[in-house]
Amino acid sequence: MQSDEEQIRSLVATWMAATQAGDAETVLSLIADDAVFLMPGRPPMHKGEFAEGMKAQASPSAPSFEGHSEIQEITVAGEWAFMWSKLAVTVKPKDGSAPMARQGHTLTVLKKQAGKWLLARDANMLAPSNPAGA
Amino acid sequence: MQSDEEQIRSLVATWMAATQAGDAETVLSLIADDAVFLMPGRPPMHKGEFAEGMKAQASPSAPSFEGHSEIQEITVAGEWAFMWSKLAVTVKPKDGSAPMARQGHTLTVLKKQAGKWLLARDANMLAPSNPAGA
Repeated sequence: MQSDEEQIRSLVATWMAATQAGDAETVLSLIADDAVFLMPGRPPMHKGEFAEGMKAQASPSAPSFEGHSEIQEITVAGEWAFMWSKLAVTVKPKDGSAPMARQGHTLTVLKKQAGKWLLARDANMLAPSNPAGA
Repeated sequence: MQSDEEQIRSLVATWMAATQAGDAETVLSLIADDAVFLMPGRPPMHKGEFAEGMKAQASPSAPSFEGHSEIQEITVAGEWAFMWSKLAVTVKPKDGSAPMARQGHTLTVLKKQAGKWLLARDANMLAPSNPAGA
């Protein structure tokens, strides 16, 4: 049986692979219904809005996504946990225009519901960086 | 006796007042020794660096600081807690140049050490906004 930390690492691996594959259903299954996504310069985003964004990303004309996550820390406190990660993301438009690269840190709160860890709060501090190879 | 949530609200009130007063000693007493501050476009900042920044801010030529925090949520899980806040900050240079206003959200992890809540991880997503009254 996986430890809580192992389960959370699995969640991150599944999240990254499903996002890359444009598999909205899998990504949404990892998010608590009352989740809140926080980022600079934007109002808080809830699960419904996040789902709309994921679906738009699944269209054939949507840019492709590549991401790499390095987990810095996972701390579990009962049914809650927090995780600090270093994240690098490259978004490649289908029209051949320049890829957009962003990198930085995330601080994520997770909660265990019915034995399954879910993303509950996410602080996204990614900022533009030079695209790899550009 | 104050509940954990009340103690965390007191910490925030003390933090804001001490920051505004340039009282570095009080602010630093609210921070865990292994604390990490995360923000966009910068490497993680540890307590030592944070302390240096606070001391620089205490010099007579340093800008004055005004902040307003609205706590959106506090969740306590044993000796750990997390807090989501809406924060607005105005920094006014002493030379009379235009004030700089920033606003946005923070996601903070706190831990209870020897019965006292301390700031342990802080995700700062403040972005520039129009200065009040400008």
